[in-house]
Amino acid sequence: MCRFLCYKGPQILLADLLYRPQHSLILQSFKARERTEPLNGDGFGVGWYATNISPTPCVFTSLTPAWSNQNLRRLSEHVESSCFFAHVRAASPGMRVGEENCHPFQHHRFLWMHNGTIEGFWQIRRRLRASLPDQLYDAIQGTTDSEHAFAVFLQLLGDTERVCSAKEMGQALVLTIAQLERWTAETGSSAPSYFNFAVTDGQSIAAVRYVSNPALEPASLYYSVAGKHANERTVVIASERLNEDSTDWIRVAPNHVVTITQELTVNIELMDVVRLGSKMSPP
Amino acid sequence: MCRFLCYKGPQILLADLLYRPQHSLILQSFKARERTEPLNGDGFGVGWYATNISPTPCVFTSLTPAWSNQNLRRLSEHVESSCFFAHVRAASPGMRVGEENCHPFQHHRFLWMHNGTIEGFWQIRRRLRASLPDQLYDAIQGTTDSEHAFAVFLQLLGDTERVCSAKEMGQALVLTIAQLERWTAETGSSAPSYFNFAVTDGQSIAAVRYVSNPALEPASLYYSVAGKHANERTVVIASERLNEDSTDWIRVAPNHVVTITQELTVNIELMDVVRLGSKMSPP
Amino acid sequence: MCRFLCYKGPQILLADLLYRPQHSLILQSFKARERTEPLNGDGFGVGWYATNISPTPCVFTSLTPAWSNQNLRRLSEHVESSCFFAHVRAASPGMRVGEENCHPFQHHRFLWMHNGTIEGFWQIRRRLRASLPDQLYDAIQGTTDSEHAFAVFLQLLGDTERVCSAKEMGQALVLTIAQLERWTAETGSSAPSYFNFAVTDGQSIAAVRYVSNPALEPASLYYSVAGKHANERTVVIASERLNEDSTDWIRVAPNHVVTITQELTVNIELMDVVRLGSKMSPP
Amino acid sequence: MCRFLCYKGPQILLADLLYRPQHSLILQSFKARERTEPLNGDGFGVGWYATNISPTPCVFTSLTPAWSNQNLRRLSEHVESSCFFAHVRAASPGMRVGEENCHPFQHHRFLWMHNGTIEGFWQIRRRLRASLPDQLYDAIQGTTDSEHAFAVFLQLLGDTERVCSAKEMGQALVLTIAQLERWTAETGSSAPSYFNFAVTDGQSIAAVRYVSNPALEPASLYYSVAGKHANERTVVIASERLNEDSTDWIRVAPNHVVTITQELTVNIELMDVVRLGSKMSPP
Repeated sequence: MCRFLCYKGPQILLADLLYRPQHSLILQSFKARERTEPLNGDGFGVGWYATNISPTPCVFTSLTPAWSNQNLRRLSEHVESSCFFAHVRAASPGMRVGEENCHPFQHHRFLWMHNGTIEGFWQIRRRLRASLPDQLYDAIQGTTDSEHAFAVFLQLLGDTERVCSAKEMGQALVLTIAQLERWTAETGSSAPSYFNFAVTDGQSIAAVRYVSNPALEPASLYYSVAGKHANERTVVIASERLNEDSTDWIRVAPNHVVTITQELTVNIELMDVVRLGSKMSPP
Repeated sequence: MCRFLCYKGPQILLADLLYRPQHSLILQSFKARERTEPLNGDGFGVGWYATNISPTPCVFTSLTPAWSNQNLRRLSEHVESSCFFAHVRAASPGMRVGEENCHPFQHHRFLWMHNGTIEGFWQIRRRLRASLPDQLYDAIQGTTDSEHAFAVFLQLLGDTERVCSAKEMGQALVLTIAQLERWTAETGSSAPSYFNFAVTDGQSIAAVRYVSNPALEPASLYYSVAGKHANERTVVIASERLNEDSTDWIRVAPNHVVTITQELTVNIELMDVVRLGSKMSPP
Repeated sequence: MCRFLCYKGPQILLADLLYRPQHSLILQSFKARERTEPLNGDGFGVGWYATNISPTPCVFTSLTPAWSNQNLRRLSEHVESSCFFAHVRAASPGMRVGEENCHPFQHHRFLWMHNGTIEGFWQIRRRLRASLPDQLYDAIQGTTDSEHAFAVFLQLLGDTERVCSAKEMGQALVLTIAQLERWTAETGSSAPSYFNFAVTDGQSIAAVRYVSNPALEPASLYYSVAGKHANERTVVIASERLNEDSTDWIRVAPNHVVTITQELTVNIELMDVVRLGSKMSPP
Repeated sequence: MCRFLCYKGPQILLADLLYRPQHSLILQSFKARERTEPLNGDGFGVGWYATNISPTPCVFTSLTPAWSNQNLRRLSEHVESSCFFAHVRAASPGMRVGEENCHPFQHHRFLWMHNGTIEGFWQIRRRLRASLPDQLYDAIQGTTDSEHAFAVFLQLLGDTERVCSAKEMGQALVLTIAQLERWTAETGSSAPSYFNFAVTDGQSIAAVRYVSNPALEPASLYYSVAGKHANERTVVIASERLNEDSTDWIRVAPNHVVTITQELTVNIELMDVVRLGSKMSPP
C-alpha cells in the first residue's frame, strides 16, 4: 500500500503539487490519512516528461524516504512538466526496499505506478513470468508484484512503440486485472487483491480503482479537474485529496477507470465486466 | 526528538532487545507511543562493546530507516554484547539526514545519545565551539546539537583516557546541561530545551531526563532492572517501555540522573541544583 | 570481474585480512593488479560465521565502494571469525549496482561468491530459472549471473540442511559449471565464460578457477596455508596475493578445485572431466 | 584532488558533455589521465541553471560513484541548460564521503567547485571559521576545505544578492587564495596548496589554476571555446580535455584566472600578485 499522484495540464513546477499543498504527497509519505498505516517511507520516485527533449520520461528514484530527500526537494523546485507521476512507497512485508523496487516503473515511453497488493503474488509469479516475451521478461529489474503487473500490461497493450489512446490504455488496465485475477483464482486463494494502477505514455493517462472482493472498499483514489477551457485545464489523480476543504476532489467509484486524453478530456467508466470475465488465451 | 535504548548486563543478542520485544526500538522507529509524532525514520545507529576485542565500541549507523535495514537485522541476529546503545532518529527541522548526524556518537571509548532539542542551538553554536579544545573541536563531524553537547560533556569530564565512574559521568552530564542552559540564557531565549542524554564508556552508564522549563514534562525515559544477583542482573534504559504490561518499567522522574555502575548497581538521583546554579568559568 | 577472499583458521579480526595486508582486499577495491581494470568499486560484501551464536553467517553488504565505507572499517576492527568471505564488486555492463546484487550471496548456512562472467547469461537465464524448484527460484533477489549460478549449485548439492563435506561442495561446483556450460553451448555462443566460484557452509570451503576456453587464462586465484599443526593452521584463498614478496602464495592451476575441510586439510584437484561431460537430466 | 567541468553557452543536454565525449567527466570518475590516481569515486554532483524557472541552480549530488548512478544518467539525458557545473570527487584522506561534502556547493545563486587541497587546512580551520559572519558560518554543512574556501570567497565578494561581473568574481577568487595562503603561512607550513577553483552565479563564470609553490605544476585545467559568433559560442572549462585529438583545448597557464562574461567573452589573466601580497584586514 502506497500513495501516488498523476498530473496532466499546463507546465507546472513539480513542487507545486509535491510539496506545497496542505496535504501534499510528501506529507503523505509519513502522514497519509486514508490508510490504516500513515507511513510510506520505503523510498519514492518521480517521473516527468520534458517533451521538447525526449519522448521518454526522466525518472528519479531513491530508497530513502521522500520527506528528507534534498535532491527531490531541489529537483521539485527546478523542474517543470506538463505530465508527471510521483509515488511514495510502503513496501509489502518481505519485499526489499531498494531503488529497483521504486515506482514509477519505466519502459520506453511508459510510466507505471501501483498502490495495492496482488494477493498470492508469490504463487502466480512463475506463471506470470513464463507468459512474458523475452523483452519484457528481461526488463524486470526488481521483485515487486507491481513491476510484474506492468509487464503483463505492456504485453496486453501490444506494440508499445505506436501511439495509443487513453481508452486503449484503460482497456489494457482492465485486461491486466482480469489476467491477474484469473491466475490468482487458479491458486485457490480467496484473499482480496488491491489494484489501484496508473499508467501514462506521456500523452494520455489511465488509472483504475479496484479491489477483487466487491464487499470491500478499494484503496482510496480521487481526481480533480480545474480550468474551464481545455487549453488551461489541469487534471490531478491522487490517492488522497491534496487539500482538505476542497469541493474539487471527486472520489473515483469502486471498479472504475479514469482516463485523461491528450486533449485533457476526463472520462470515468465502470470496468467492463465482460472483458473481466472473458477468456484470455492462456500463456 | 528521537528514541533510544541502553543495555548493560550479561551478554545478549542485540535482536533480543532491538527486534523481539512487543514494543521494540525498531517498532518505535515508526510507531513510537510517547511522542506526538510516532516517526523516527531519519536514520539510526547502534554501538556495542566487544570487550575481549577492543575497549572502543563498534558503531554501525545508516541514514536509511531502521525498520527496513537488512544489515541491521542481520547484525542484530549475530552480534552479542554485554553493553550497547541503540538510537532511532527523528531529525529536528533543518538538520540534515546523513550518517554524520546519526547517534550514537563515538569518541574513543565513549558513546553518546540524545533525545531532545537544545533550544536556540544556532544562537549558541559559535560560542559553544569556541569553548572547545582543538581535539574536541576537530572531532565534530556533523551539525547536530547532540554531537556538540557531547563535545561539551567530554571537555567537562576531563581526561577521557582514564577510567571514570558512573557517578563522575552523571555529574558531568549535569554540568553539561548547566553549561548549555547558561549559554542559552545569554541569548534571552525562554523556549524550553529537552535534554535526555545517555553516555557510556563501556563500563558504566549515565543517563538524564530533563527539561529546562519545570512546568513542562521532559521527554519520556524508563529503566528496568531484572535479575536478583548482581552477576545475572540486566539493566535497560529506554525512551519507551519495551513491553506494555510489564510492571518492571520504572519511569525516571523529571530532572533525575540514572547511573549504572560497572557492578550493575543502579542509582537514581535528583540533579544537583547547586551544580546547575554554580558558576563555570566562561570559555 | 571482481576480487574476493576466503578465510578459515583460528579466530582473527576481519581487519587483519581486509585492511592490514600490503595488498589488502580493500586496496584491491581500487588498485587490483591482476585485472586489466583495477577498479572494483560497485559495492562490496562480507559474510562471517559466529558459530557460538548461529550456524548461519552474518552478511553485511553495501552498494557504496569498500574503500570509503566507515561501517565496514569499524566492523572489521571489532568482529572476529574463524571463517569468513569478503568480496569487492565490479559490476558487469548492464548489471545494476545495488545491495541485492552484492556478494557474498547467502542461503541458509551457505555463502557464495563469484569472480567472472557467464557468457550469454541473458540467453540462458529463463532456461536456468525454469530448472529451479520454487524455493530456490523465489530466493533469488537480484539479477546477477552469480546469484543465479548459486541457485543452480544449491539444487545440484541437494538437501542444503544436512552437513556436507568439502569434497561434495567441490563436486557440486564442477557440476554447476558443467550445467551452465551445457546451457550456454545450446545458445551457440562460443565466447568464453569465467567461473571463479567460492562456497562455504561455515565448516568447509570449496573454490574453483576455470575458464571455458582452455586457450585462455582463467581469472587469477591463489591460496596460502600457514601454521604447521592443524589446530593453528590458517588458510586463505584470494583473487590476488595479499602481500607481494611472500613465497607462501600458490597460484591455483587452471581448471582446478581447491577444498578446505573442517579439519583444515587443503586439497587441490583437477576438475573431473567425466563429470563435466556427463549428461544431466535436462530441466 | 578531483575532476570538474563548467559549461556556458547555448542550451545543451547535460549528457552531451557528461557522458558522450570520448574522455567524458563520467569516464574521468574512474579513468582520469592527468592525476597520479585515476579514481574519483567518492561521490559527485551537478548543478545547473534553469533561468526561466529560478535564478538559483538545481543541485543533484550523491555519495555513490558517478559511473553507476542511474539517476544521474537519466537526469543527464533529460535536462538541458545553458550554464552548469559538474564534479567527480576524490576525497582527501580523512575527509568523510557524504552528500554534505559533495561539490558543487551552493549558496543562493552561486555554485562552487574545487579541485585540490588546502595544505594545513586543519591548522587554519578555526581561524577561518572565526572570520566568517554568522550567515556564512551557519551555511557550512560539511567538513571539506573546499566548502570553507567557498565561505571565504563569498565574504570577500561582499553582497551576494547583487549581480556581479566575471571580473569581480575572478578578483574575489584571487583574494580568497591570498587570504588562505596568509593563514597557512602563519602556521609555518611550507607544503604546497593546490587551488583550482570554479565559481558561477549562473551568469558569469570564473576559474583559477594555482599552486602555492611556483616550482610545482598546478593541477591540470583546460578551456575550450567553440562558435564564431557570440550568440552561438560555447565555452567549456574542464580539469581534463574531453577529447584527445582536439586542437581546441587550451591549457590554462599556472596562476592564471579564466573568466567567462555574461556575453560569453573569455579572458585569461595572470593572477594579480599585488592583490596576493596586499594586506587584508585580519578577521
